[in-house]
Amino acid sequence: MSIDMLIDKIIEKNNPSVIGLDPRIEYVPAFIKTACYEQYGKNLTGVAQAILTFNKKLIDELCDIIPAVKPQSAYYEMYGIEGIKVFHETINYAKKKGLYVIADVKRNDIGSTAEAYSSAYLGNTKIDNELNVNTFNSDSITVNPYLGTDGVKPFINDCNQYNKSIFVLVKTSNPSSGEIQDLMVENKTIYQKVAELVKQWGRTSIGQKGYSNIGAVVGATYPDQAVKLRKTMPNTYFLVPGYGAQGGTANDVASCFNNDGLGAIINSSRGIICAYINKRYPEKEFAHAAREAAIQMKNDILDSLK
Amino acid sequence: MSIDMLIDKIIEKNNPSVIGLDPRIEYVPAFIKTACYEQYGKNLTGVAQAILTFNKKLIDELCDIIPAVKPQSAYYEMYGIEGIKVFHETINYAKKKGLYVIADVKRNDIGSTAEAYSSAYLGNTKIDNELNVNTFNSDSITVNPYLGTDGVKPFINDCNQYNKSIFVLVKTSNPSSGEIQDLMVENKTIYQKVAELVKQWGRTSIGQKGYSNIGAVVGATYPDQAVKLRKTMPNTYFLVPGYGAQGGTANDVASCFNNDGLGAIINSSRGIICAYINKRYPEKEFAHAAREAAIQMKNDILDSLK
Repeated sequence: MSIDMLIDKIIEKNNPSVIGLDPRIEYVPAFIKTACYEQYGKNLTGVAQAILTFNKKLIDELCDIIPAVKPQSAYYEMYGIEGIKVFHETINYAKKKGLYVIADVKRNDIGSTAEAYSSAYLGNTKIDNELNVNTFNSDSITVNPYLGTDGVKPFINDCNQYNKSIFVLVKTSNPSSGEIQDLMVENKTIYQKVAELVKQWGRTSIGQKGYSNIGAVVGATYPDQAVKLRKTMPNTYFLVPGYGAQGGTANDVASCFNNDGLGAIINSSRGIICAYINKRYPEKEFAHAAREAAIQMKNDILDSLK
Repeated sequence: MSIDMLIDKIIEKNNPSVIGLDPRIEYVPAFIKTACYEQYGKNLTGVAQAILTFNKKLIDELCDIIPAVKPQSAYYEMYGIEGIKVFHETINYAKKKGLYVIADVKRNDIGSTAEAYSSAYLGNTKIDNELNVNTFNSDSITVNPYLGTDGVKPFINDCNQYNKSIFVLVKTSNPSSGEIQDLMVENKTIYQKVAELVKQWGRTSIGQKGYSNIGAVVGATYPDQAVKLRKTMPNTYFLVPGYGAQGGTANDVASCFNNDGLGAIINSSRGIICAYINKRYPEKEFAHAAREAAIQMKNDILDSLK
């Protein structure tokens, strides 16, 4: 689905946030694990089923108040094939529940290979030029820009053809993101140079709300840089990680929004899915705790925009 | 396995090349496809089985003359879960045949997530701090450096702990790699800055042959840049894509080697696995054609080093 469809969901729920589904097995309540290990064994199948149960309950409890989820591929790949099956099932389940799904895969490669990745996550896979098969079929993915235009172009083409979106890493939320991204080229940083490319890549896909299908990842942990990036890329939607567990506050993320109240979607992962641990709720109430935390996050962000 | 083990295999076979297993279904001979579609259906399972058959025959035919294979994850992910199963089976099969396996995944993320990726491909996955499960368990992977040290550190830690290696993207082989990688910071390009980081990341893991477990990806299509990079990173092994189908020649890659005749491993994918198509062999002879092309490539590279 295009960026317009994400924006529609954000407006409908009055909630510019996305919940990261990054389910290490340690985060799953013991009663779910015990049941799944009993049924499937204490092995990768049991683990994967426990994670799927956890994800589905979270989605059930959150889907009426949030516009989107962001499953992080790494936390499924680490559990092997069984984990990746659950990644796929989570994407399908969230879509069925009306959520916009951003698969956080940070894929990147040379053109011919980027095409293959794009077939996997945005477009579809042709078999001998006859059958078209949808594989992971998410609404959106994250993309790393280090290879330049021809490594990103296949994703852009599929955004246009299949009404999807991507978020390109511009300024990431981690402590050492500056090592490469903050290097100065003449009077600009690398992340500003990347921002200019992202703006250019998105120029031909600006939708009805004034935003392009080619978005940017801008970390909540760098609010001053976000101010500049917001100016450089007025028509670019920002996916903003780093709120909550990584230290970003609602005031920090306020600068990622435009005056129309749009332009950014803020991610929290552990802050929501682990809320029952952090706030010492009984584990049976993990989904309720996540809902409370998600509502608090939403209000926190909306307050900062007043 | 550490970089020393890769070097041992290169010396043993007298062959500094790696074959890229990038098997789009279009590359698989019709007789294999027909048999697999009959048995499993013309669907992703049939496709995946055809690719597995293709890969195994190629590995059988090549394993006594090549040191390593490099399966490219994208070409398996595009065929969904069934494709990724074959990616895993290909890694296992190649290792069983004594080959060093570089999983070309170009993963990258913030520290906690990079840890999860590293568990998936280099280390192992803990289940509730009790069980350790090997998931994809390759010998080496490719890593994108855009996030800086804390996004690469988890991979480095697992290289040290599990005797593995990584190859970090420095200067990629694609036409637009210069858009970001060639930008000038003071008197240095971004790829030189990344090269300095790679050198620093590898400093503590230099093995018996004088090379670090932290390698670099340097494209065969940019020979002048390779000359400079070889000087900047004398103890870094280069994984060199871009030979053959992408236009790099044996003379182009010669500058990636050190005077010891080591320091680089040259990749060819389509040039080898599609040799039967390019050279109009009967399709039943696809593996034989690949073997001939691999021998020619080896001789071509060794001649250029004389």
